[in-house]
Amino acid sequence: MQWTKVLGLGLGAAALLGLGIILGHFAIPKKANSPAPSISAPQDLDLEILETVMGQLDAHRIRENLRELSREPHLASSPRDEDLVQLLLQRWKDPESGLDSAEAFTYEVLLSFPSQEQPNVVDVVGPTGDIIHSCHRTEENVTGEQGGPDVIQPYAAYAPSGTPQGLLVYANHGTEDDFKELQTQGIKLEGTIALTRYGGVGRGDKDVPVIQPDSTDRHWLGCAEMTFAVARGTAINDLCKHHLAHGKIGLSWLPQLRKEEEEQDISGVERGSYYKYFGDPLTPYLPAIPSSFRLDLANVSGFPPIPTQPIGFQDARDLLCNLKGTLAPATWQGALGCHYRLGPGFRPDGNFSADSQVNVSVYNRLELRNSSNVLGIIHGAVEPDRYVLYGNHRDSWVHGAVDPSSGTAVLLELSRVLGTLLKKGTWRPRRSIVFASWGAEEFGLIGSTEFTEEFFNKLQERTVAYINVDIAVFANATLRVQGTPPVQSVVFSATKEIRSPGPGDLSIYDNWIRYFNRSSPEYGLVPSLGSLGAGSDYAPFIHFLGISSMDIAYTYDLSKTSARIYPTYHTAFDTFDYVDKFLDPGFSSHQAVAQTAGSIILRLSDSFFLPLKVSDYSETLRSFLQAAQQDLGALLEQHSISLGPLVTAVEKFEAEAAALGQRISTLQKGSPDPLQVRMLNDQLMLLERSFLNPRAFPEERYYSHVLWAARTGSVATFPGLSNACSRARDTASGSEAWAEVQRQLSIVVTALEGAAATLRPVVDL
Amino acid sequence: MQWTKVLGLGLGAAALLGLGIILGHFAIPKKANSPAPSISAPQDLDLEILETVMGQLDAHRIRENLRELSREPHLASSPRDEDLVQLLLQRWKDPESGLDSAEAFTYEVLLSFPSQEQPNVVDVVGPTGDIIHSCHRTEENVTGEQGGPDVIQPYAAYAPSGTPQGLLVYANHGTEDDFKELQTQGIKLEGTIALTRYGGVGRGDKDVPVIQPDSTDRHWLGCAEMTFAVARGTAINDLCKHHLAHGKIGLSWLPQLRKEEEEQDISGVERGSYYKYFGDPLTPYLPAIPSSFRLDLANVSGFPPIPTQPIGFQDARDLLCNLKGTLAPATWQGALGCHYRLGPGFRPDGNFSADSQVNVSVYNRLELRNSSNVLGIIHGAVEPDRYVLYGNHRDSWVHGAVDPSSGTAVLLELSRVLGTLLKKGTWRPRRSIVFASWGAEEFGLIGSTEFTEEFFNKLQERTVAYINVDIAVFANATLRVQGTPPVQSVVFSATKEIRSPGPGDLSIYDNWIRYFNRSSPEYGLVPSLGSLGAGSDYAPFIHFLGISSMDIAYTYDLSKTSARIYPTYHTAFDTFDYVDKFLDPGFSSHQAVAQTAGSIILRLSDSFFLPLKVSDYSETLRSFLQAAQQDLGALLEQHSISLGPLVTAVEKFEAEAAALGQRISTLQKGSPDPLQVRMLNDQLMLLERSFLNPRAFPEERYYSHVLWAARTGSVATFPGLSNACSRARDTASGSEAWAEVQRQLSIVVTALEGAAATLRPVVDL
Repeated sequence: MQWTKVLGLGLGAAALLGLGIILGHFAIPKKANSPAPSISAPQDLDLEILETVMGQLDAHRIRENLRELSREPHLASSPRDEDLVQLLLQRWKDPESGLDSAEAFTYEVLLSFPSQEQPNVVDVVGPTGDIIHSCHRTEENVTGEQGGPDVIQPYAAYAPSGTPQGLLVYANHGTEDDFKELQTQGIKLEGTIALTRYGGVGRGDKDVPVIQPDSTDRHWLGCAEMTFAVARGTAINDLCKHHLAHGKIGLSWLPQLRKEEEEQDISGVERGSYYKYFGDPLTPYLPAIPSSFRLDLANVSGFPPIPTQPIGFQDARDLLCNLKGTLAPATWQGALGCHYRLGPGFRPDGNFSADSQVNVSVYNRLELRNSSNVLGIIHGAVEPDRYVLYGNHRDSWVHGAVDPSSGTAVLLELSRVLGTLLKKGTWRPRRSIVFASWGAEEFGLIGSTEFTEEFFNKLQERTVAYINVDIAVFANATLRVQGTPPVQSVVFSATKEIRSPGPGDLSIYDNWIRYFNRSSPEYGLVPSLGSLGAGSDYAPFIHFLGISSMDIAYTYDLSKTSARIYPTYHTAFDTFDYVDKFLDPGFSSHQAVAQTAGSIILRLSDSFFLPLKVSDYSETLRSFLQAAQQDLGALLEQHSISLGPLVTAVEKFEAEAAALGQRISTLQKGSPDPLQVRMLNDQLMLLERSFLNPRAFPEERYYSHVLWAARTGSVATFPGLSNACSRARDTASGSEAWAEVQRQLSIVVTALEGAAATLRPVVDL
Repeated sequence: MQWTKVLGLGLGAAALLGLGIILGHFAIPKKANSPAPSISAPQDLDLEILETVMGQLDAHRIRENLRELSREPHLASSPRDEDLVQLLLQRWKDPESGLDSAEAFTYEVLLSFPSQEQPNVVDVVGPTGDIIHSCHRTEENVTGEQGGPDVIQPYAAYAPSGTPQGLLVYANHGTEDDFKELQTQGIKLEGTIALTRYGGVGRGDKDVPVIQPDSTDRHWLGCAEMTFAVARGTAINDLCKHHLAHGKIGLSWLPQLRKEEEEQDISGVERGSYYKYFGDPLTPYLPAIPSSFRLDLANVSGFPPIPTQPIGFQDARDLLCNLKGTLAPATWQGALGCHYRLGPGFRPDGNFSADSQVNVSVYNRLELRNSSNVLGIIHGAVEPDRYVLYGNHRDSWVHGAVDPSSGTAVLLELSRVLGTLLKKGTWRPRRSIVFASWGAEEFGLIGSTEFTEEFFNKLQERTVAYINVDIAVFANATLRVQGTPPVQSVVFSATKEIRSPGPGDLSIYDNWIRYFNRSSPEYGLVPSLGSLGAGSDYAPFIHFLGISSMDIAYTYDLSKTSARIYPTYHTAFDTFDYVDKFLDPGFSSHQAVAQTAGSIILRLSDSFFLPLKVSDYSETLRSFLQAAQQDLGALLEQHSISLGPLVTAVEKFEAEAAALGQRISTLQKGSPDPLQVRMLNDQLMLLERSFLNPRAFPEERYYSHVLWAARTGSVATFPGLSNACSRARDTASGSEAWAEVQRQLSIVVTALEGAAATLRPVVDL
């Protein structure tokens, strides 16, 4: 630098000083409505602002949001869904409490609906064609909310239409192994109708075994499958008992909940998408704007191959408990109060005549519909090109008070509190904050996926982290967070400072650690974060874009329930009163989630140094490595595959991550230059990207993250390695399958070495 | 911001002022050996430094570099190649003129060599098995440099070994259409040896038609192909005449060049790689480190399927001019001084008996060899995490004075001049400068490709631009630049300030515009940049990583020659004396390239605002769009495909690029904050990335750039669209081929819309 330049800078700084004092003194209350991007001074997290936000997040307002959001069913692309788009736009454009700007982005996407004229039916049909028994087509209208015209019939979205009929068999969870077991038991599947139970595999994967081209079950394609909620029935019981024990649910509320204690008259049926992938089915990797190329329907993969219809607890019991045939294996038994048999067909001494068949008539239709995302933004004052992205979907199956409106109610309260500070001029974040209300999540994360397809590069280059709050409150026991390791520290920092709802004076952190914990080699006992699958809109962000993501909710004490999900999930009983009276009276758990998310948003958007601790990936990598060594090492050695390079790569990552942490600590003690901090922050932000490899799993749509892709192999290690080993295990050395193991190992090593390279001092070669 | 913070900042600034004056005044001469990253003041391009660098780039030193570099053959992975690695390391670690650091990165890559014991031969064999004629196995030892033990026999790298024998046919360029033409002419290809001539398609593509699985030529696989240099022969003549006309080549130099004027005794043969793709053949998408997964040889695609051997001008004439059979089509005729016939076999009245056959014996071997890149870096003072990358390969076929040592000689002179300023403490660039000497380029850009595979994310996130100078001087007429549009403006700025070599007082720019020019809608007549194929190490940077790239050289007056390349290309005659005496005596063209590259490096690394003009993409997009409309519009309309969305996308890009240009202009008039400029610069740097789509062309290895991927279709528009249209043209609407046209159109539209989105103000949704 030349001395004349230094002089110029110094004079400028002196002038700034005077101006600063005057401005600082007289300009209170401060006005920050227009972005002030020329400020490069180290604006940092302001604890007073944080405290203000924590104090202003209001349980009562969340309750009022929820009442409005869940007043009517708001299925994706329905008129009420569109009304809510307008509601969000209005809130986010409010002059007193809105954001800097808000906009709706509409896509034309392929959805699936049952016919309004011809409902889907599941009947037991006698030998003369007479209908002996009809499964319920709708849920019982208990509260007056289950009978409205906008309550969609329970159905399996994307299941094809068709009217197959045949003898009934029981197929456990409907996995490939389950169907093989039936064949082993001598049961011919051709021409039968399969009754499967909830769980085991995801909805979209239930049918897969029967359509594999080389499957011996191919002849079975003309038949049908039904999914019902045995496991959910159980879950309801467990949950109710748990809630009773905690004094939160009286036996008096819903008649069917009370009766369900006696396992009677449970009419709730779970709707859901049976599409195997996510995103709009017609436009993979392309945004579903009207002009985009759309696949011919014949070329779409991932839809269920056979007509499918979900049924409820009572109907499932009536069908299953009347089956004849061999007793099902012990692991196939359940809680319906009878011995489960395999079929085919009904027993002669039961409710149906022995030669009765089951008819499944599905009249689902595929329709191109408009579905919108709503995006709202608070412009960052200093680094407006760094986005902290917070989102939830808006669409529900019916009223969706819990799913997703509990999350949307929190979203609106968060945007109100931050928007109000913004509009008052009290605060503007260092980085930009983007709020998102996604459309058509229930059909397969469609809105969020289309968004990532449309703005792939922009988002990948600029997004600091993605925070998802879908179902905010499953239950009241504890916080539950799923996320990638770099977000662990910011979640811990936030939750240590917020009081847990309920009696006592614990922090959310201290309560959380009682329910979910692990022993960390570095930190000792800490709350354990779950890993991110594809259950909500975080999926495209983490798997497709490689953006550090998290999903936040309040949930059960899993030691006291085997519940996968709350009892009214995807039914017409997921209503405001259910939340208000039983799930979270007083909305203190909702408030706790809002405070947690709000604190995380502020920390990510306002901290001078990004609170993403990349060295927290080291424990994950080390545990994956150890699993590989312990559970695969001998096998790999037999096939002359060395884990040595993986060991080296993990060690290199650990060393580089630790060294970067040291450099940050040193820098934090000084008064670092904003550009210098920006460069470090870029290393932190972009680490997650270095684990992406779009060519690693060509058969897995969108899944590019070599650490978090879907793992089908049993060993809890790097998914590509685990899956490849699982496939290669029974093949000879030198097979293509073992070559794929080696390829997957090299992909992981390359990713880890590349990640370590991004963490090194930026001038290192 | 709180007033206490303003006060703190102001006090800090005041302190800084005092310190700055003291430092600025007393610290001259300035010492910049250690990076000073805490400086965020707008360090900008320093014109005095620029002038110093221009003045210090020394033609004589370039000549001395070249003498040393080309003293011995330095084939990839040979001992002399390793010696040059050490030479580069030594230069770049020199305490007086070296860089901040330098390191060699070694890969284990699959190369192909002829056997040392058993040379490849091409013989004419009589009916009794006696050898009637043997093609030259080596080039004539004219200067004493063609006969050394390290001069590798001419060969087709990666061609398989084998000893086929059969009647000779002439197959023009050896394209699919050429072989079809032979079949149309009634010639059975089975059992024949094909003689093909230079050009038409690249080396690696010559054989492709005969291995297409559905090709009717499949039976022809047992035979052989020879490539010889008819076109090059022509080129030699043209070039010599041209050089004569410019007084640069006397007739007295090399006997064979003189004789060649009479088309006699030309013994030069072009070596080259016949691998179809680039990068190490065994490790696509993975760095070829020892532990990486390597393909089984049986699974490698892209090698020539049949034994192949190149022969020279005289041998080609002897074979071709003795063929019998139908006269070849007019477009197949050439300059060998006889009528070209198709064969099969020789005419009875020629040099060989009519039933003579040709035997091609190839004994090439594949070998895993170590090959190194050498990387050297100058740490950026302010933005060390932004890399200006400059490179050339180091390996040659023989002495490689022109290819690649002319470029390496320039590279070393550039690093010396900049290194000296650095070590003296006179200068340190704002951003980091990385110099690269790539290994094994001649075998298929292997070193550079492995480098991009190993450091994919780091490079993609941080590299401002890649500058390639491979052959620095083809000839002395004019500068020639290939590059993507954003680099046009910096090349223009640089070349306007540098005097052109040769008589007169023109700038390089003013000279250049006389030879290569185009009429720009925005600027009027300007020099025209060529587009980047895959001819040198820029290929992985632009196609795989999406980094704005350029290739710089001095070259021919193309109006006076049809030469594709200089006469001694890839022969043992590409020696220092050839350059020194004939190609560029005085090395003024070398110096001009060094100055051009040096100025570009300084502008890219030192300018406060990155000199990448993204709006210069608008003209390219507009011309692609116009070509699509004019040459494909009617066809597309017949198949109900609208170009409307493409028009909209191009318009949106144009508007956003122009608006960004405006914002930059406005900002440049003020005194912008370094963070603000960094954010804008990131938009400029990352624009090129937004044209990448790794799923656009799954069959094209590494090619992901939707604007510059290889174009096989005839219409000069977006390559995916052009190629898909070319394939769909003769199919019915509704075919898969037309669906692919629509898909490719959507891919381009999505890329352009995404690119426009990255150019918008960063807070726009």
